[in-house]
Amino acid sequence: MTTRRILLAAIPQGAPKPTDFHIETVDVPLCPDNGLLVRTQYLSVDPYLRGRISGKRTYVDPILTGAPMVSGAIGEVVESRHSGFQPGDLVTGMWPWQEIAAVDGKDVRKLDPNDGPVTAQLSVLGITGLTAYFGLLEICNPKAGETLVVSGAAGAVGMVVGQIGKILGCRVTGIAGTESKLEYVRSLGFDGAVSYRAADLGKQVAAACPNGIDCYFDNVGGSVTDTVLPLMNVFSRISLCGQISQYNATAPESGPRPFPILLVRQIKAEGFIVTRWANRFAEGRKQLLTWLREGKLQNRETVYEGFENTPEAFIGLFRGDNTGKAIVKL
Amino acid sequence: MTTRRILLAAIPQGAPKPTDFHIETVDVPLCPDNGLLVRTQYLSVDPYLRGRISGKRTYVDPILTGAPMVSGAIGEVVESRHSGFQPGDLVTGMWPWQEIAAVDGKDVRKLDPNDGPVTAQLSVLGITGLTAYFGLLEICNPKAGETLVVSGAAGAVGMVVGQIGKILGCRVTGIAGTESKLEYVRSLGFDGAVSYRAADLGKQVAAACPNGIDCYFDNVGGSVTDTVLPLMNVFSRISLCGQISQYNATAPESGPRPFPILLVRQIKAEGFIVTRWANRFAEGRKQLLTWLREGKLQNRETVYEGFENTPEAFIGLFRGDNTGKAIVKL
Repeated sequence: MTTRRILLAAIPQGAPKPTDFHIETVDVPLCPDNGLLVRTQYLSVDPYLRGRISGKRTYVDPILTGAPMVSGAIGEVVESRHSGFQPGDLVTGMWPWQEIAAVDGKDVRKLDPNDGPVTAQLSVLGITGLTAYFGLLEICNPKAGETLVVSGAAGAVGMVVGQIGKILGCRVTGIAGTESKLEYVRSLGFDGAVSYRAADLGKQVAAACPNGIDCYFDNVGGSVTDTVLPLMNVFSRISLCGQISQYNATAPESGPRPFPILLVRQIKAEGFIVTRWANRFAEGRKQLLTWLREGKLQNRETVYEGFENTPEAFIGLFRGDNTGKAIVKL
Repeated sequence: MTTRRILLAAIPQGAPKPTDFHIETVDVPLCPDNGLLVRTQYLSVDPYLRGRISGKRTYVDPILTGAPMVSGAIGEVVESRHSGFQPGDLVTGMWPWQEIAAVDGKDVRKLDPNDGPVTAQLSVLGITGLTAYFGLLEICNPKAGETLVVSGAAGAVGMVVGQIGKILGCRVTGIAGTESKLEYVRSLGFDGAVSYRAADLGKQVAAACPNGIDCYFDNVGGSVTDTVLPLMNVFSRISLCGQISQYNATAPESGPRPFPILLVRQIKAEGFIVTRWANRFAEGRKQLLTWLREGKLQNRETVYEGFENTPEAFIGLFRGDNTGKAIVKL
């Protein structure tokens, strides 16, 4: 019996393109000792994957040319050689872009109906939700009444960041691209929504933040961040979560130096990878699920249909095609 | 009776020059209610003053054209209308560049012989010492065995930072300009000393820091910091204390964007002004004095003689003329 998988065909130069990926048919793998065979139902595509296919080591080893693409996934167990799982179980974890994949039992988590909506496990209840939750609370540490700005506001992380900001009593402004994204952000109750394409972005953000900015959750970097920085208050905090504007750069980009402003305003900027809080993920998921059930937190997904469209879903992230979490449904 | 004072004659364009200052003779002021007349004995000149004479508000109001220059000072009380002071007392505080100045009693602190060497009050026991102490401990939070790099290592703050790093058991490398400064830094027990003028600065810093860099105390910014950043470890910390390379820029400088590295390495960069810890200055002074008396902390001053040379002492800071704390002796 055969199954399909998707490999990295070439390290992308600049924006990733379809020919950087290769789809092929292989034999269904054997079920490993203490492992499972899972039939993939959903795949997550995320901007951070761009770093993993850059050919360089960042915080994890790179996916090399010819190797399978790997990302967050949900699937149904079709064969188990692990005592904790049986066929029919729904599981989530990280595994290859492959229709039927072999996984280690210790690397996946079993889902049950009490865990909330299934696809939300790849979104507000998954890594992107946890990224928003811990990255905002632990680094920006926003207080009620403070002003929060989030870039990439209509993206998978940004939409959760802004909503948590509102739950905490902050004044929240989101920066996004298209009018439909700005409408979406407003529908979530954000106080302000500004397009980064506006020629007067700085003026618009300043108008939306009459008390200055206390917390900036940055998914974008580049010129958007250059514009936000001069509006930040003394003792403000920047949570560096993503820099999507830079991921496709073929050479490191230059820009106005931020450290002189950080100095005189006593601003903290800190980068993070959410796995640093891995031992608190259960706590984060519990809070996010509570908010979801209380109706305080909305989920939004852009769902691509068909395994073969996974590269296109990934490529679309860098064009801003997705509103909310981009997910592929097999 | 008359006295001399120094005013800001013009907002410096680029590097400050003698004609940006004006010395004049005025009547000795009257002793104010609850105030003192002090005969200035020592004046402190410091790089941060460049920001105060830029015509822009930073964290304090600017000194405007025609207004007296103000900085840290030590003097002897010659007249008192404050119950806490009497003629002959030695006091320190911030007051105008003026031979006999009027000060408010609440703005000065009386010195006594138990406080340690007099001029050290403007150096290792003064604001620059406290800047090193709190900026290093509270932001970099270095642990024994970690690697600390300090830029401006032979300056008033840098020399204290590196020495505290050694007291705490860190491996310390200092970056400075001239060979005599590097020799001074080595004489303090730093493990490495590298000239920022070296064409292969990055290689030399990397060689001096075989385990990477955990803490970077930055007094300089600009290309020096660009070179240090790629050598920093995951979870490392940057204390942004000064950016002297940028202070004379006539337009904001551009450089490689640091935030992408901060993100993937989970680095924290935080700016500070030492006054945020003002309520803990007594604690800091006590520790610094203890280390000074134990011989664990050395003081070094570059002393300029003569009130009229105060502008020159200040201007020299940006040429790197001083080793240790620059002080003017009246």
